[in-house]
Amino acid sequence: MVSENTTRWIALLAYPELTLLDLVGPLQILRGLGAPFRTAVVGENLKPILTDTSVCITPQMTFADIQDPDVIIIPGGPGSVAAMANHALQTYLKATAESATVVASVCTGALPLAATGLLEGRRVSVHWAYARELELLGARYERARFTEDGKFITSAGVSAGIDMALHLAAKLAGQEISQRIQLGLEYDPQPPFGGIDWTQVGEKELTRQRRGGTGARLTQAQELLAERPDLLQRLRLGR
Amino acid sequence: MVSENTTRWIALLAYPELTLLDLVGPLQILRGLGAPFRTAVVGENLKPILTDTSVCITPQMTFADIQDPDVIIIPGGPGSVAAMANHALQTYLKATAESATVVASVCTGALPLAATGLLEGRRVSVHWAYARELELLGARYERARFTEDGKFITSAGVSAGIDMALHLAAKLAGQEISQRIQLGLEYDPQPPFGGIDWTQVGEKELTRQRRGGTGARLTQAQELLAERPDLLQRLRLGR
Repeated sequence: MVSENTTRWIALLAYPELTLLDLVGPLQILRGLGAPFRTAVVGENLKPILTDTSVCITPQMTFADIQDPDVIIIPGGPGSVAAMANHALQTYLKATAESATVVASVCTGALPLAATGLLEGRRVSVHWAYARELELLGARYERARFTEDGKFITSAGVSAGIDMALHLAAKLAGQEISQRIQLGLEYDPQPPFGGIDWTQVGEKELTRQRRGGTGARLTQAQELLAERPDLLQRLRLGR
Repeated sequence: MVSENTTRWIALLAYPELTLLDLVGPLQILRGLGAPFRTAVVGENLKPILTDTSVCITPQMTFADIQDPDVIIIPGGPGSVAAMANHALQTYLKATAESATVVASVCTGALPLAATGLLEGRRVSVHWAYARELELLGARYERARFTEDGKFITSAGVSAGIDMALHLAAKLAGQEISQRIQLGLEYDPQPPFGGIDWTQVGEKELTRQRRGGTGARLTQAQELLAERPDLLQRLRLGR
């Protein structure tokens, strides 16, 4: 245990093949909170972890080091499928969620979080292309940038973690601090072709988007989730 | 040289104390381009590099490995001050900028880029709090999310790298691909308290923002830029 009584830890969970921006968006924002908050990327061990980009990140602390985080954030990514059956990660999520004040997910990080059973019946956001899986796992999909239900704050795909983290920063330290962090990161977004026109996003684009990333891993779910037949059954992938 | 003739390398430069999101925003977007483009985080060597967060990243390739990148992107961060006098980095920037089709910066990454002399007289964007230093280094500050002048595309603070990279993706592979990447990252931003109200950002906030990060390092410029008396003089920090 390296945690001191006065430190309020914000633990960002790392696992293989996470989407790097899912983790880094919230990390960059929440590190700006300053004391008593401290961010830490935590993993099962301290070995470098390959992300969905070609870059590895190295956790600074292990699950054993921070047993009582104030806030837990789980990113999504192609590895979120395997993370549903990752025993160490599932155990850590369940054990820490009990005493944490906030449990948050970004993108398909909602899937391993749902696999703990903690999102049963809750209103939850997730990457738009994986709403079906989320519902099969027992949550109620909410099309929103992020959704708060009890201590759970779940966000839409990848970049939504930035909006969610600014909301979380305000919740933890007040709106003034959150807006100061926003100014520091010059987060005054202007997507060059505008926001997403959801009226143009149909089945064809859904199929296309699910060909890679998490979607590609779901086609391997029989193997990846072999130790969680309950999940395979819920996802209608049971033999 | 690991580069193949057919590969168009997008080199993201890493150096100590860079701002992690400056690097990861563009990396996450541009990795989505697929062949013939390939992203690589390049550093002077392959040792882990401490970022402004508590996380280290490990370059995948060295400057020597990728001598002819098609695109170069330099992030900002507190370390951008020392990067102005980083001989290996300055040499790499100057050598590769000649044949690159695009040289881009995020946030205060414009400062080490300006230190090469390549931005002399050009219209350039940078983190809002460091416009003065940019102008002292010979560029003309442009208040914009990103600015394109010749082969140089420079962006405002941190998160602006995301908007810039979507523009760059369209430039390299077409608007349709860029918008598909945007959809994959669900980049439909909704800052919880709205965008930045620039009418509320005055001298007081400028002073406050410059207390940390790059601003704190500028107070150490006499030491950090000791080997570049020309820059100290331009920044009016000469003895």
